[in-house]
Amino acid sequence: MADNLLWDLKSLSPLQLFERVTEQGEKVRALKAGKAPKDEVDAAVRMLLSLKLSYKTITGQDYQAGLPPRDLVWINNGPAKEEEEDLVDPWNVQTSNAKGVDYDKLIVRFGSSKINTDLINRIERATGRKPHHFLRRGIFFSHRDMDQILDAYENKKPFYLYTGRGPSSQAMHVGHLVPFLFTKWLQEVFDVPLVIQLTDDEKYLWKDLTTEKAYEYAKENAKDIIACGFDINKTFIFSDLDYLGSSTGFYRNIVKVQKHVTFNQVKGIFGFTDSDCIGKISFPAIQAAPSFSSSFPQIFNGKENIQCLIPCAIDQDPYFRMTRDVAPRIGHPKPALLHSVFFPALQGAQTKMSASDPNSSVFLTDTPKQIKTKINKHAFSGGRDTIEEHRKYGGNCDVDVSFMYLTFFLEDDDRLEQLKQAYTSGELLTGELKKVLIETLQPLIAAHQERRKQVTDEVLKEFMTPRKLAFEF
Amino acid sequence: MADNLLWDLKSLSPLQLFERVTEQGEKVRALKAGKAPKDEVDAAVRMLLSLKLSYKTITGQDYQAGLPPRDLVWINNGPAKEEEEDLVDPWNVQTSNAKGVDYDKLIVRFGSSKINTDLINRIERATGRKPHHFLRRGIFFSHRDMDQILDAYENKKPFYLYTGRGPSSQAMHVGHLVPFLFTKWLQEVFDVPLVIQLTDDEKYLWKDLTTEKAYEYAKENAKDIIACGFDINKTFIFSDLDYLGSSTGFYRNIVKVQKHVTFNQVKGIFGFTDSDCIGKISFPAIQAAPSFSSSFPQIFNGKENIQCLIPCAIDQDPYFRMTRDVAPRIGHPKPALLHSVFFPALQGAQTKMSASDPNSSVFLTDTPKQIKTKINKHAFSGGRDTIEEHRKYGGNCDVDVSFMYLTFFLEDDDRLEQLKQAYTSGELLTGELKKVLIETLQPLIAAHQERRKQVTDEVLKEFMTPRKLAFEF
Repeated sequence: MADNLLWDLKSLSPLQLFERVTEQGEKVRALKAGKAPKDEVDAAVRMLLSLKLSYKTITGQDYQAGLPPRDLVWINNGPAKEEEEDLVDPWNVQTSNAKGVDYDKLIVRFGSSKINTDLINRIERATGRKPHHFLRRGIFFSHRDMDQILDAYENKKPFYLYTGRGPSSQAMHVGHLVPFLFTKWLQEVFDVPLVIQLTDDEKYLWKDLTTEKAYEYAKENAKDIIACGFDINKTFIFSDLDYLGSSTGFYRNIVKVQKHVTFNQVKGIFGFTDSDCIGKISFPAIQAAPSFSSSFPQIFNGKENIQCLIPCAIDQDPYFRMTRDVAPRIGHPKPALLHSVFFPALQGAQTKMSASDPNSSVFLTDTPKQIKTKINKHAFSGGRDTIEEHRKYGGNCDVDVSFMYLTFFLEDDDRLEQLKQAYTSGELLTGELKKVLIETLQPLIAAHQERRKQVTDEVLKEFMTPRKLAFEF
Repeated sequence: MADNLLWDLKSLSPLQLFERVTEQGEKVRALKAGKAPKDEVDAAVRMLLSLKLSYKTITGQDYQAGLPPRDLVWINNGPAKEEEEDLVDPWNVQTSNAKGVDYDKLIVRFGSSKINTDLINRIERATGRKPHHFLRRGIFFSHRDMDQILDAYENKKPFYLYTGRGPSSQAMHVGHLVPFLFTKWLQEVFDVPLVIQLTDDEKYLWKDLTTEKAYEYAKENAKDIIACGFDINKTFIFSDLDYLGSSTGFYRNIVKVQKHVTFNQVKGIFGFTDSDCIGKISFPAIQAAPSFSSSFPQIFNGKENIQCLIPCAIDQDPYFRMTRDVAPRIGHPKPALLHSVFFPALQGAQTKMSASDPNSSVFLTDTPKQIKTKINKHAFSGGRDTIEEHRKYGGNCDVDVSFMYLTFFLEDDDRLEQLKQAYTSGELLTGELKKVLIETLQPLIAAHQERRKQVTDEVLKEFMTPRKLAFEF
C-alpha cells in the first residue's frame, strides 16, 4: 500500500504533500480527542506514518510539523540556523559581513540558478545586444527558468515583464532605480509588454499610513519610475488600491491564489504569526497575481498562458517561490525570475538602508551639493587609516561603498577596472575615488530630476490607465 | 501603575485588549527564548500580569490564550460547552431539539437584544404600517441597535439596507426567500437604498467550484432575488467577483477591515485553523465591507457615515459582530442588525437542509405536483400515529414542519390561529394540514416562477450595474 501511496503522491508538489501530512496529523489528533474506536485511530496512524515516509522519500527531508519543505522555507527559518547566517526576507536584509550577503550561499538555499557566462552569452546571441553591465558584473546574479524565456523568444513566442515597488515614502534613492534600469533594458532588447505593480495596499497594511497617503506615495514613486524612460506605449503602471477596483481579471487571480495557499504555508514562507492581521496574511496573493497574464485582460486580450519574467531584488523571491508552487495548480505557467543583489547603504553593506534616514543613501531628490557632502561624509571607505599606509598596502574594493556604487552606476568597464587596480594598489586615495563617484552620480541624478519634471499628471494618468498596449495578442 | 494602565486600556474594545495581552505574552516568550537580561524579562512579566488583571476587570472573564473575549466567541467555542448545546455558525446549524434551536439562549450567548412588543410597536408608529408577519410571529426575533435606526428615521436621517446570499448552487428553496421577503418589506416601508451581496468568491473558496460556475450561480440566484419584487431604482445587486473589480471604494474598505482583524480573532470567531487557505481567513472582511456606505460611492456620493441595517439569519451574526468591533476603529458607524430564525428542513427542525437534497425543502423550481408529493411524503408530522389517537390527544404544532412552514408563508393571522387550535385539539388531521400548506405554497411558487420569467438578462444587468439609485446624498 505504501508503494501505491508513494506513486499517488508523486504528482503532488512538496508543499501539497506537506499539507497532506499535516492534515492527516490533525485527523489523528481529532480521532484521539473524540475517543474514536481503536481500529479507526490505528488506521489513521498507519496512514500518517506512510505519508511521513513518502514525504521523506520524495523531499529528502524529515517531516517537521509547522515547517514546510526546505525549498520553500525562508532562509532564516531553516532548522540549521547558524549565528552568522544572513537574514533575508521581504522586510529584512541583515548580514554581519562587510562585503554584504553571501549570494552563492543564497542561491543554494533558495534553490535558484546562478546566472553564468553561458546564460549571459545566450542572452547576447538571442538579442544581438551587448549584455547590460548589471549582468556582466553579477548585479543580477540568479535566475529561475530564464532558459524557458529565451526558448520562447527564439521561437517567436510572446512573454511579458513584471516588476514592482512598495511605495513606503515619497523618497526614492539610487538603489531603488536598479530593478527599473534593468527592466527598461530588458524591455528595449526583447520588445515586450511591461507591468509595474505599486503595492500601496501592502504599505497601508504594514506601516502607520492611511490608504490616501499610501496611494499618494504610489503616484509620486510612479513619476520617478516613468523618469527612468519607460515606453508609454508598452508599459502599464498600477497601484493595487486602484487597479484591484478596476479589473475583474486581477481579483479573480488573487482569489484563485488565495484558495491554493494555506496559513501554514505563508507562516513557513514569510514568518507570519497568529497575531498578524488577516490583510498581511492574504497579501502574498496580491503580489503573486500579476505573474499571470489573465490579470491584464486589456493587454493580453484575455489570453491566460503568456509567460511572465520578473526582474527583482532577491528578497522578493519568497513571493514568487509561492507563486511558482501555485501556478500549475490553477492552470497558469510559472513565472521566470531574474534576481539582483541588494544595494548597500552608504554606511556599508552590513547596515540597513532606510528611507527615513537621508544619510543612508543618495536620494533622487538630492542636490549636487548634498550628493557631494553625503558621499564625502558617510560613504564607508575601504581605504587605510593614513595616506602612508594606504599608499603602502592599498584599499579594499570589496568593502568600499564608493566602489560598490560605481559598479552599479559607472558604465565604462575599462574605467572601472582601472579604478579598482589603482585603489587596490594604493595609487588612488579614498577622496579621489569618492570624487569619481560624486562626478558619476551628480549628472545622473540631475538628468533624472530633469526627466521627472517632464512627467506631467497627464502622462502619469496615461501610464496608470488600464488599456491595450502596442502589442497584438 | 496598574490603575493607570486600567484607565488607558478602558478605551480599547475587548478584542483589542485581548490582542494586547496576547502580544505581551508573545513578547515574554521571545525575551525568554532570546535569553534577555533578567530585569527585562521580569518587567515584561509584570506588565503581562497587569494586563491580565485589567482584562479580567474590564471583561469580567479570565484571559485564556487563543480564546477571544466571550461576546465575540462563537457559541460552539464557549468554554462551558454542554453536550446538548446547539451548534450555530455560518456553515453549520445543529440542534438535537425537534422544536429547533433555542433562540432565547442564542440571544444571551450572542449578546444581542430580543425584538419585543415595544420595539414592534415603535416600528409600527414610525412607519405607520402594520408590522410584517415575520415580526409579529417572532421569525425576526433578535436585533442590534434597531433603536438607533428608528431614531435616525424619525429625525429624517438616511440609512440603508444590506443583505446577501452565498450562491452555492442554482437551486434556491423557499427558506432562502425569508430574508429577501422581509428586506423587500423594509425597503417599502422605510423607502431606503438596498444593496445585496452575492458572495460568489466565498463559494469558490469553500466549495469545489470554478470562479466561472460560482459567478453563474450568482447571476441565476440574482434572478430569483429580483423576482421577489425589489425596486430596480432603489436596489443594487452585486457579485463579489465582479464588483470588487469595479469599485475602488469597496476594496479600500476591505483592506481597512483586514488591517484591523488578526488571525487570532478570526480563529476565535469562525474556528479557522492553520490548514485553512488564506482566502477563507481574509474573507470575513469582504462580507464586512458592504456595511460601510463608502463601499458604494456611486450610491452615496462618497459619503462615509450613512448607517446600515442588515436583515439576515442569525448564523451570519459572527461576521457582523466582527464588523461592529472594527467599525469605530476605521471611522465608520456600526451596522445595526435584524436576525431571523432558521428555516427548518422538511424532515424536521433538527435536521440539516441541503441544496443537494431535493427532498429537504420546497424549491423555487418545483412544479405544483412536486410540491404536493414532497410535502405529503417528507414533511415531518407532529400528528399522532393513528387517527383515533390524533382525535383523542391532538397534534403538536411545535414540531410539525407543515405548521412551521405555514407560520412563514400563510399571512392570515386568524386562519393560522384556527389551524393551530384545530390541529392541537385533534380536529384537523395531518393530511388536512398538509393540504393547507400545499395550497398555500403552490400559488406562491407559481407566481414566483411567473415573475422570474419576466426577469430578462437586461433587467439583471441593470440591477447589477454600479450606478446612482433614486436617492440624493
